[in-house]
Amino acid sequence: MVSEYRLKRRVQFYETDAAGIVHFSWFFRYMEEAEHALWRAAGISIHRAGSDIGWPRVAASFEFKRPLRFEDEFDIRLRIVEMTRRTIRYACDLAQGDTPIASGGLTIACVLKRPDAPMKSIDIPPEIAARFQVAERDA
Amino acid sequence: MVSEYRLKRRVQFYETDAAGIVHFSWFFRYMEEAEHALWRAAGISIHRAGSDIGWPRVAASFEFKRPLRFEDEFDIRLRIVEMTRRTIRYACDLAQGDTPIASGGLTIACVLKRPDAPMKSIDIPPEIAARFQVAERDA
Amino acid sequence: MVSEYRLKRRVQFYETDAAGIVHFSWFFRYMEEAEHALWRAAGISIHRAGSDIGWPRVAASFEFKRPLRFEDEFDIRLRIVEMTRRTIRYACDLAQGDTPIASGGLTIACVLKRPDAPMKSIDIPPEIAARFQVAERDA
Amino acid sequence: MVSEYRLKRRVQFYETDAAGIVHFSWFFRYMEEAEHALWRAAGISIHRAGSDIGWPRVAASFEFKRPLRFEDEFDIRLRIVEMTRRTIRYACDLAQGDTPIASGGLTIACVLKRPDAPMKSIDIPPEIAARFQVAERDA
Repeated sequence: MVSEYRLKRRVQFYETDAAGIVHFSWFFRYMEEAEHALWRAAGISIHRAGSDIGWPRVAASFEFKRPLRFEDEFDIRLRIVEMTRRTIRYACDLAQGDTPIASGGLTIACVLKRPDAPMKSIDIPPEIAARFQVAERDA
Repeated sequence: MVSEYRLKRRVQFYETDAAGIVHFSWFFRYMEEAEHALWRAAGISIHRAGSDIGWPRVAASFEFKRPLRFEDEFDIRLRIVEMTRRTIRYACDLAQGDTPIASGGLTIACVLKRPDAPMKSIDIPPEIAARFQVAERDA
Repeated sequence: MVSEYRLKRRVQFYETDAAGIVHFSWFFRYMEEAEHALWRAAGISIHRAGSDIGWPRVAASFEFKRPLRFEDEFDIRLRIVEMTRRTIRYACDLAQGDTPIASGGLTIACVLKRPDAPMKSIDIPPEIAARFQVAERDA
Repeated sequence: MVSEYRLKRRVQFYETDAAGIVHFSWFFRYMEEAEHALWRAAGISIHRAGSDIGWPRVAASFEFKRPLRFEDEFDIRLRIVEMTRRTIRYACDLAQGDTPIASGGLTIACVLKRPDAPMKSIDIPPEIAARFQVAERDA
């Protein structure tokens, strides 16, 4: 069972903006990259072609402490901090070594995708829930 | 003095993802589009070439209620909900008519950009602060 | 029958990069925005949910003459320059007034989307082909 | 002296579109990722903060042969195919093993960035030109 994932990443040029720093919308994509890598580490894909189960984002947030610039290397740490019957909540920290860059959160929900009808909230299938667990708190 | 901006927008194809809906990172860009339009409505640009003042994002969040799809038209409403000496906080609502799509928040800070030194928090210049005011609460 | 579309557009902040100009990848998105608006002007959507017909891009190119910067307004002009049984080719010009910014080309092909099999090239359905025609050459 | 770079990459979710495949604009970003990695392999950064030399893109093109989907792994191969006094031209091939995905080209020019004046084409500085050479043709 997995509960955490760490990823090393380098800033790409197209992620920067005219202020010379990474545009804030990219932090949400960095967080999602780590989430999908966590799922791969758990042995599954969060988005399988043809599946009628989906994982829309319910809430997302970030607090930005220091900027990132072109070619900067940084660390992404994603942890599962809550699991309910129908949702998973992650906490995410970006850092350069010991220097914090940003802290974020992401909540996703399990849904049934139905053609010609809205997505419907469902319980997380047990074979998926069994692969994940909440991370232990840092001491 | 401006305190609110409303924008009509249509979903572009490159904003959708393989789940067939707008990728959640785009909502933060929609919110920023409305912010920059608000500043233009106030008679100024949030990013002037050569200026040593910048407006980095300090915090950003969204709650997602319903998905948007390719070519959907929607409304963005951005309001100033708090101004301090050094920060501005916005609330943002996306909707299709009376149907809520998502609600977000964004806090920005005024900084001095210094070559070879970190950005430094400063008071909002009076000629900028004078153009904005907090929006009245909805009744 | 439509053969051409003109669109006015303003540069968004997230389209700029650390060089202070619009990142070149965005010009391809601007071109596609105009293409999809052309299809809407022809009364149809290029991507209908549930349709088994698709329009993948076969080739795309741009020559860049002058940069665009944050908040610049510019004009996009897209014309159909060739139609074959299975493909449509567009030419695209970006300009600010009489000042050329960039010139691009885009070729798309009509395909049948098949679950569990590669996309298959097919003839453009007559009810779609009947809505478009090649633009007249500029004098 | 470097003339070629190979990069392994995995498709991220935010790179896909509602057609279920990577949006074509991303191929240009993949090509640029390999270009910047080539420059790092040559010991330099293509974009140094504070430098008055820039490398705007003059032309870019791609032919798309097969689609990429979420989590696909693929190879990017970038080669220098021409160097003039003021420009560098690359060829780029994307593949999955022996299966070609797309072929692109990119031409960049060396410019002097001038505040309050347009960018001006200049000769490539010798200390930069000395680090690169044209790749040998495939047999």
